[in-house]
Amino acid sequence: MPEPLDKGTPTVRGFKAAAVASGLKKVHGPDLALIVSERAATAAGVFTSNKVKAAPVILSRKNIQNGRATAIIANAGNANACTGNPGLADTERTADLVGKALGISPDEILVASTGVIGQRLDMDKIRSAIPELRETLTSEGIPMVAQAIMTTDSFPKISRFDGMAEKRPYRILGLAKGAGMIMPNMATMLCFILTDIQIAPDTLRQALSVSTEKTFNRISVDGDTSTNDMVLMLANGMAGNTALREEDHARFQEGLTGVMEDLARMIVKDGEGATKLVDVVINNAHSAEDALNAAKTVANSSLVKTAFYGQDPNWGRIMAALGRADVDMDETHVDIRVNDVQIVSGGLGSGEEAEKQAAEIMTRKEFVLSIDLHRGSHRDHIVTCDLTHEYININADYRT
Amino acid sequence: MPEPLDKGTPTVRGFKAAAVASGLKKVHGPDLALIVSERAATAAGVFTSNKVKAAPVILSRKNIQNGRATAIIANAGNANACTGNPGLADTERTADLVGKALGISPDEILVASTGVIGQRLDMDKIRSAIPELRETLTSEGIPMVAQAIMTTDSFPKISRFDGMAEKRPYRILGLAKGAGMIMPNMATMLCFILTDIQIAPDTLRQALSVSTEKTFNRISVDGDTSTNDMVLMLANGMAGNTALREEDHARFQEGLTGVMEDLARMIVKDGEGATKLVDVVINNAHSAEDALNAAKTVANSSLVKTAFYGQDPNWGRIMAALGRADVDMDETHVDIRVNDVQIVSGGLGSGEEAEKQAAEIMTRKEFVLSIDLHRGSHRDHIVTCDLTHEYININADYRT
Repeated sequence: MPEPLDKGTPTVRGFKAAAVASGLKKVHGPDLALIVSERAATAAGVFTSNKVKAAPVILSRKNIQNGRATAIIANAGNANACTGNPGLADTERTADLVGKALGISPDEILVASTGVIGQRLDMDKIRSAIPELRETLTSEGIPMVAQAIMTTDSFPKISRFDGMAEKRPYRILGLAKGAGMIMPNMATMLCFILTDIQIAPDTLRQALSVSTEKTFNRISVDGDTSTNDMVLMLANGMAGNTALREEDHARFQEGLTGVMEDLARMIVKDGEGATKLVDVVINNAHSAEDALNAAKTVANSSLVKTAFYGQDPNWGRIMAALGRADVDMDETHVDIRVNDVQIVSGGLGSGEEAEKQAAEIMTRKEFVLSIDLHRGSHRDHIVTCDLTHEYININADYRT
Repeated sequence: MPEPLDKGTPTVRGFKAAAVASGLKKVHGPDLALIVSERAATAAGVFTSNKVKAAPVILSRKNIQNGRATAIIANAGNANACTGNPGLADTERTADLVGKALGISPDEILVASTGVIGQRLDMDKIRSAIPELRETLTSEGIPMVAQAIMTTDSFPKISRFDGMAEKRPYRILGLAKGAGMIMPNMATMLCFILTDIQIAPDTLRQALSVSTEKTFNRISVDGDTSTNDMVLMLANGMAGNTALREEDHARFQEGLTGVMEDLARMIVKDGEGATKLVDVVINNAHSAEDALNAAKTVANSSLVKTAFYGQDPNWGRIMAALGRADVDMDETHVDIRVNDVQIVSGGLGSGEEAEKQAAEIMTRKEFVLSIDLHRGSHRDHIVTCDLTHEYININADYRT
């Protein structure tokens, strides 16, 4: 588990950041951010599985291939997706401009974008903003980045882990933006993780993949995946350890998972219009695949999600969702609980008193819906949110 | 295409029906309905693919196995699903009571239920209501059945086809209820189709299956399938043809598809909270499976459906949905149209003027969203609706 965080400004040795208002967002505010490592960092990334990939996804995947990167430039307000070759050229031009400003090769720049799909980036705005970005770089600038990459997010998302490797302290600092279009795989639209640990590229890649699978690939807001999702991780080695040793690995992995879990849950909490965070847990499924499928189907059911919103332990909808999840099940062996209150036993309702207690629990902002299939020993979960009037407000009006 | 319908009361030779207010619905009104054929009819059914099957689904599947049935008893207000063996016994008891009242074997009775899941039927109410049901049976009672089986429906759904076989007129009359929990496969919650044609059980079964695949299995409201979905069809042979001949078959199939298509579209139009009916058409997919998958993914995307509601030709969301549909595609070859207005050409937006025109079309109650993948020659479609504030209202408050 992450150690208690100090209350100071979140910084990581050797990283500077800045954010400016370039005018890309419709509402004026910081919308262009830059993160720079003092020295070239070991880098790893996880990218959207959507077949429609935004230009920055294409470029950043290419640039991170060699396991090295120095800076991340990120904008909100425009996703630079479905913009074809001109859009890709815009992303390349952005990397060029940043590279020139920092005096490094454009290959060492990663680019991330989030916002509306299908519109060309206003390159003049980006070009004009880069000098100010460079001039305002500061080791205390990371929270501003978390702010600048927000779109429909209502709060910036930052999490941190402090660990020790070879008796030297290191830090993992993560920031993310999310809100809508969240579903495995991938989950968050953008997540940047900075650490000063020294680590080999393959080890970093493997560690990031393991933690992603447990965290961002276990959340869902509306079942849609984005064209722009990416997790980028930079490790600049300035903690002074020689390289991550076997004995420090487990703790590092745990810390990374903790940070990403934290961010993933924040994203669901801030899901578009969400008022409740619900852990949908499947126990004792016949196979690992069944456990995940059942969790996803229940967690993505519009009828189940509106029942969460209505604070209604409407287990019939949960049973109906399980029934179409294409998993091995026998309805007469299904148990369902809301936190510790059992509302279904052997496929039958546990009665009004239990439902009343469950409804009471469902007034809370967080609760656990656990389903026992009694068909094996596999377990999985999805963190989801409710489906609300506000989701409709946000998404019916997002562009207009 | 169905012939023009006369404006009289919809009747079918040899069928009588009635509906009464038994008290099963929370709001007082007709909620128990009976349809009886003068003679044992040839019967076929299509049932939910959900693994959680309501008691009436289990019983009706069994009773229709031999291709024969005489009556349908249907209730709204209680789905008799997730009620275990006691629930199954209630359904059997219902068939017994109806059989006794009509003087026929309970094996000839089909039972259908719709409403809340997980509560036992109030058998006293059903028992008390059956004498009145029997006494009020009339050949003009079918519209009352369509009324009685409504739950969150806002209007009763009836469609009719008049045809000729061996120069003898016959009729196909369909009624349905739908609204929420609609997705292939199966779509409608309940649909009853009555005809006086003479037809062999295997031919009827085959015809019903073909028409279901083209109609009810091509609609979607919220991606949830119900535990109670069923289509029941009775053919009592009273039209006087000797049996459906080869030369009359195509016309009969066409008529049946027309009636079911009509009902299926009414169900989507009446989708919970829906304000728009949208045909999502996929053209030139690499395979039949790809065409259907792409149509389903776009038609079920919450982000696309809220954009319909917002009358926003937000094609980026459509591209993103296609990208996660797991179909063969190249984003630079995708064209998208709203009716005849092209908004995407080769994966790129067609500009503001086109979007303005498309937005204008999207203010209508019905339009077609067609997507050309240019990867082959397969085509499919899903009829869907928008996702609205009213959907949330209905489903957050359905039980409470």
